[in-house]
Amino acid sequence: MKSRITLAMILLTSIGFANLSAAALPDPGVTIVPGRTALLITDPQNDFLSPEGVAWGVVGKSVTDNHTVENIDALFKAAKANDMPVFISPHYYYPTDHGWQFEGALEALMHAIGMFDREGALTVKGFEGSGADWLAQYKKYINDGETVVSNPHKVYGPETNDLVLQLRKRGIDKVILGGMSANLCTESHMRELIEQGFEVAVVSDATAAAIVEEGNGYESALVNFRFIANTVWTTAEAVKKINNAE
Amino acid sequence: MKSRITLAMILLTSIGFANLSAAALPDPGVTIVPGRTALLITDPQNDFLSPEGVAWGVVGKSVTDNHTVENIDALFKAAKANDMPVFISPHYYYPTDHGWQFEGALEALMHAIGMFDREGALTVKGFEGSGADWLAQYKKYINDGETVVSNPHKVYGPETNDLVLQLRKRGIDKVILGGMSANLCTESHMRELIEQGFEVAVVSDATAAAIVEEGNGYESALVNFRFIANTVWTTAEAVKKINNAE
Amino acid sequence: MKSRITLAMILLTSIGFANLSAAALPDPGVTIVPGRTALLITDPQNDFLSPEGVAWGVVGKSVTDNHTVENIDALFKAAKANDMPVFISPHYYYPTDHGWQFEGALEALMHAIGMFDREGALTVKGFEGSGADWLAQYKKYINDGETVVSNPHKVYGPETNDLVLQLRKRGIDKVILGGMSANLCTESHMRELIEQGFEVAVVSDATAAAIVEEGNGYESALVNFRFIANTVWTTAEAVKKINNAE
Amino acid sequence: MKSRITLAMILLTSIGFANLSAAALPDPGVTIVPGRTALLITDPQNDFLSPEGVAWGVVGKSVTDNHTVENIDALFKAAKANDMPVFISPHYYYPTDHGWQFEGALEALMHAIGMFDREGALTVKGFEGSGADWLAQYKKYINDGETVVSNPHKVYGPETNDLVLQLRKRGIDKVILGGMSANLCTESHMRELIEQGFEVAVVSDATAAAIVEEGNGYESALVNFRFIANTVWTTAEAVKKINNAE
Repeated sequence: MKSRITLAMILLTSIGFANLSAAALPDPGVTIVPGRTALLITDPQNDFLSPEGVAWGVVGKSVTDNHTVENIDALFKAAKANDMPVFISPHYYYPTDHGWQFEGALEALMHAIGMFDREGALTVKGFEGSGADWLAQYKKYINDGETVVSNPHKVYGPETNDLVLQLRKRGIDKVILGGMSANLCTESHMRELIEQGFEVAVVSDATAAAIVEEGNGYESALVNFRFIANTVWTTAEAVKKINNAE
Repeated sequence: MKSRITLAMILLTSIGFANLSAAALPDPGVTIVPGRTALLITDPQNDFLSPEGVAWGVVGKSVTDNHTVENIDALFKAAKANDMPVFISPHYYYPTDHGWQFEGALEALMHAIGMFDREGALTVKGFEGSGADWLAQYKKYINDGETVVSNPHKVYGPETNDLVLQLRKRGIDKVILGGMSANLCTESHMRELIEQGFEVAVVSDATAAAIVEEGNGYESALVNFRFIANTVWTTAEAVKKINNAE
Repeated sequence: MKSRITLAMILLTSIGFANLSAAALPDPGVTIVPGRTALLITDPQNDFLSPEGVAWGVVGKSVTDNHTVENIDALFKAAKANDMPVFISPHYYYPTDHGWQFEGALEALMHAIGMFDREGALTVKGFEGSGADWLAQYKKYINDGETVVSNPHKVYGPETNDLVLQLRKRGIDKVILGGMSANLCTESHMRELIEQGFEVAVVSDATAAAIVEEGNGYESALVNFRFIANTVWTTAEAVKKINNAE
Repeated sequence: MKSRITLAMILLTSIGFANLSAAALPDPGVTIVPGRTALLITDPQNDFLSPEGVAWGVVGKSVTDNHTVENIDALFKAAKANDMPVFISPHYYYPTDHGWQFEGALEALMHAIGMFDREGALTVKGFEGSGADWLAQYKKYINDGETVVSNPHKVYGPETNDLVLQLRKRGIDKVILGGMSANLCTESHMRELIEQGFEVAVVSDATAAAIVEEGNGYESALVNFRFIANTVWTTAEAVKKINNAE
């Protein structure tokens, strides 16, 4: 694959910048290597994926249109069937987090609507079935004793949790990425994993995002996935590659 | 300002998620406090901003439409006139960087076209006027002995350089952000600074991005700025606020 | 204070390196500024501080000699009496952490003896009174609804949790640091906070460390505290400064 | 090797904490795997290693006693002879760094004595042979076009530079670590690489440290290397392992 990229690039170089605007972007690709490749799902929680979740009003259409719930399920199923390590990076807020002195726009919104709220880090009172809990149909995958659940991230990316360490401690350097929401936590995980020297394949229809009058978060994420990730797959492509990896 | 946000949020909360799709996003705002606020410009370099730069073919239209060159200049001028600290986070590649074993799409492209290439970290041979050099009209601001130039970032964000430390060592916790390119380095700087607990005001027309067949990087960035940053200003608004800060 | 340092430094500079070996190290100092200064305690947990804890055999003598338990209590009490924000960075291991493929020496030891083990992130079964639980006498401080407990760190430093963000979101840039154990988590927190641009005052007798045949962890930490921190205080000094801050 | 650790640990566990104080620490070891293992040298610069350097007054005895200069040379030579990738993490200060508003003790000292000073990031005026330059005898290794020199770190660890990314972009997950100075930059690199999920073998006599009235930095580092690293080797052991790796 490397050689294919190089040829395309030499071609681009010889064409020069004048014609760069007409050029398609390179697609470096990711080759799944068993033992070094993991599935990572961000925020597979009710507040994003259930019609009862507090964010459904803004993300529901995108989740429904993309078949996000079914596609994430298909990724979990394929990974488990092939003994591919699965990692979850959840999003929780504790009561003291409401004492923050400043927030970005969506942070302010999430806090205001009580998204991902838990009663504390050392209690699970009220957690079962809450907006912060896993979508019920994913529990069999996440609670199987093998899936690694990192600490919660506290903004959008894994900078504030132990996800990178957990991946490295298992020898993972390639990540297949899906989950919620596309232009916030999913994209911030993609960006940070790339900064940390992972290869990332984003699954474009195993995610979704808020669509509000200020913009369509899903459309934005698609562009940035294509610009930044090592490659972008559909769920169907990802499942096929996971099943055929050797 | 905090109280205004809180009121809006209580309103949102009482409306509930059913109507969330109709709600405008909160705009938490950033209040400029002299001594704690800095101007940060990413990649103010020829390869992005000069018609001679290697990326002009894909970013030229966006740079021209936004008056990006003039707007960054106006930000520099306002900051210097008001003794606001100015920080630059540049993008350089050295010969050994071409030995990387894998890259994301735009990384592969940048390497292929020789973007931001320097002959080495300990030589300035061929640097003057190259694609990696500052846009000529900005040199008077950047080379004044006061502006802090961080180490080069090596992907898109400041994770790989000393920008965060440099800001903190000067007591800065609020950043006014512009520069190139909108959905890559500028957005990755915004995201990482937010993860690190800074307040960020993005200047939406002091940046620009590649427009290719895979998508419009500038439009994507605008949506994500609005979702993630503490606030988004035009250059005119930013200059006025910088001049009126007290 | 700044001017005092500068004078000392000019003196050092004029003396030159030949006499550097005779020079005492500078002591830059930390001035407590209410609203910007916090108390941070690492690992105030039974496995380190209780005679029942799994590490007592190697740390007990150091904890006893330093009066570490009483000194940490005195810091908590002083901070709470003066409305100084208090932060805790705990250390927990979950069952999946035992699947790591490689570990450093003390990591291997901690895993082998079941130190800081919890049954899972989403259960508190067996937690009460376990080695991972807070030392009983500190619970009134930690569980008062004001103290911020970060995610657990997973090696020694705060790189794998949200401590830095939690501090920044509350406007803290100066940290008074104590807790366990001196040359591992306490020192790694000191080092990382310094890298992140905080000022750190380490409280040298509000910590302790393992003494084994390979070395005295407490003695090592004392040297590194003095070399690296902005200043080093005793508990008595820290309490006095906290009470007198204005 | 893993099985050997496990046996030792089961033994420790069965003995229980009561006898922990008598137990030797585990030594997990590092197996050199060609293509995944690199040599990393911190600060191989005149200010530490040359009798003309500004820090020689405090580090000279330790450098001389350990044969640090010769041992680092032996590591370079062995790595190059075996095509093992070599990485350097240097330490530079630029004029604007002298505008920092606060510093730890050794930071204050280094700034005061002009250690590692360069005239700017975009000039090499006065660099050749200065305290910031490489020790002359190492230039043939560092300037061979293969050695990867990261951005300068700005405090002690690689948090402020691109070292981790450079290692990951070349598929490195095991690091053999030497350089200066033992309890400052070398130890901070060890700690951060461990936090980032690398395996680290520290070479205990390919480093040295300041000995001042406040303490012996080298003795402190030795204890912490043994507690934290995956293993500790002498230069003779490291060279033999590098030569015999397959």
